Amino acid sequence: MHDAAAPAAPAATDLVAALDIGGTKIAGALVAPGGEILLRAQRPTPAREDGATVLAAVRAVLDELAADAVRWRRVSALGIGSAGPVDASAGTVSPVNVPGWRDFPLVEEVRPAVGPRPVVLVGDGVAIAAAEHWQGAARGRAGALCMVVSTGVGGGLVLGGRLHPGPTGNAGHIGHISVDLDGDPCPCGGRGCVERLASGPNIARRALAAGWRPGPDGDTTAAGVARAARSGDPVALASYERAAQALAAGIAATATLVEIEVAVVGGGVAGAGEVLFAPLRRALSGYATLSFVRDLEVVPARTGTDAGLLGAAAAALALSGGAGSRPPAATR
Amino acid sequence: MHDAAAPAAPAATDLVAALDIGGTKIAGALVAPGGEILLRAQRPTPAREDGATVLAAVRAVLDELAADAVRWRRVSALGIGSAGPVDASAGTVSPVNVPGWRDFPLVEEVRPAVGPRPVVLVGDGVAIAAAEHWQGAARGRAGALCMVVSTGVGGGLVLGGRLHPGPTGNAGHIGHISVDLDGDPCPCGGRGCVERLASGPNIARRALAAGWRPGPDGDTTAAGVARAARSGDPVALASYERAAQALAAGIAATATLVEIEVAVVGGGVAGAGEVLFAPLRRALSGYATLSFVRDLEVVPARTGTDAGLLGAAAAALALSGGAGSRPPAATR
Repeated sequence: MHDAAAPAAPAATDLVAALDIGGTKIAGALVAPGGEILLRAQRPTPAREDGATVLAAVRAVLDELAADAVRWRRVSALGIGSAGPVDASAGTVSPVNVPGWRDFPLVEEVRPAVGPRPVVLVGDGVAIAAAEHWQGAARGRAGALCMVVSTGVGGGLVLGGRLHPGPTGNAGHIGHISVDLDGDPCPCGGRGCVERLASGPNIARRALAAGWRPGPDGDTTAAGVARAARSGDPVALASYERAAQALAAGIAATATLVEIEVAVVGGGVAGAGEVLFAPLRRALSGYATLSFVRDLEVVPARTGTDAGLLGAAAAALALSGGAGSRPPAATR
Repeated sequence: MHDAAAPAAPAATDLVAALDIGGTKIAGALVAPGGEILLRAQRPTPAREDGATVLAAVRAVLDELAADAVRWRRVSALGIGSAGPVDASAGTVSPVNVPGWRDFPLVEEVRPAVGPRPVVLVGDGVAIAAAEHWQGAARGRAGALCMVVSTGVGGGLVLGGRLHPGPTGNAGHIGHISVDLDGDPCPCGGRGCVERLASGPNIARRALAAGWRPGPDGDTTAAGVARAARSGDPVALASYERAAQALAAGIAATATLVEIEVAVVGGGVAGAGEVLFAPLRRALSGYATLSFVRDLEVVPARTGTDAGLLGAAAAALALSGGAGSRPPAATR
């Protein structure tokens, strides 16, 4: 898969097109078999506009990619990672932060731009897992949970060496499992969800409520709390420890349910480094107790800001079965 | 698969041998492709004896099955469902209630009795899921969690229409995921595990601690609590409601993580019927909130006392890839 297409093959389809759709931007790329991004396009997400306007932004990104006619002919499939919820079986998306799209038939609407090529839609958490399995910390792993801990908490799963998107493309949604059945209500309607305890805004909220005050820079985000924790502030440390405890309970639950060998944690909150990972590993030993989960590793994510695009491309490779594509899982 | 073997085929291997190994009995059977049990053998588990004595009981069961030489020749594989933990990758078992077996090489030790036939080992929770997927309430379902709620709480998973045992044969172990991260210590070493809140002994313990007293029959088990709940005893009802809440949180977590369409609940505690299922369905609507889990069904298990044997047989069919076997998942 790392070799260039043979020059004699006029219709070699060795690239995939990728779309990463979030609440602030719509990014697109043409991605090579080794994960190199050959061409990029991007538009801001007109998140407050009607659905047709958001779609127009998506089409503009695709048109810009397709304008490179030579490379576009090499595209075998389109992968889309979208803010959720998505419904891969119906080809629809309902991103929480894009109210103009509710059960929006995104796959159908982009088909004219891609012709007969397969279109693969997954949630953004599944895309992250695809990216980490293809190019990051879950590479070569048979079972992995890959998480993003940021404004929200999301994730995706690799099981049996393959991406497990689930029928609707939302599997691995660890942010909204309850680890505190009598806990605080969560905006999702549940209680005591991992996200309610471990997301960046909740780390900051909890520290502020317990009396922590930001330094001279006035940074009241989780990053500010992390800096205070690094200087030994006990309230800041306690807020990260509570987040770590919730993440540990959720990761241990996942391992106990499906057997994974590694949990990969990325996103802004993971940027706190050992302020998060040290208590996370400690707490994990208290929840991952059964013989078959005791050796579970927790490691930082390796794919960076392009994780969404790489993941959309990886999902297309893993799931399209399209001409010229082979699942990354099968090549490693 | 439901047709009898063609009479002209002298070496038709249309049967599987099954072993169900628990703390009180070791059951064996020869099972036909339609799930009929053609021959049974059973010994008490000499659970307090040394490992060799327990093995001798297993061999006695296998010898009794093999004594029917005509049918034994039709056996394509041996499936073993064992009390856990097990390690399918190593072929070893360490049943909590059989202290003489720790990392006991069961697969290797039974090989002489079965010759070249494949041997498939899974945990008893996975076996129950295999049984329910083959012959019970999860039949034809692409994604299912099948649980036993009894003295303990165990389970297994069907994902993508296939049994998901996990690399070590323990996946689906829902009894030991934490739904109450600050909760009571669990004998497993964790805290707030589903089993600690929802098993039969814990339902009884909680009711007694809250002041419930048994009727004239003196039955202080969960069955006694269920009878009191049926007559409207508020303390008994509350104990079942708490168990239902914990099960709901665990089931919702599973659905959110891997996408399942049905949760099948069996075991003695499920025998309480609507005393358990009514609050379970109510509680589930409070935890299974995301679009892709909202339609999750909860139904009682259908395979009865032979679930362990059927499940061992089904696991052998699903996982052995042996001559004459086809995964049940692929045939429905």
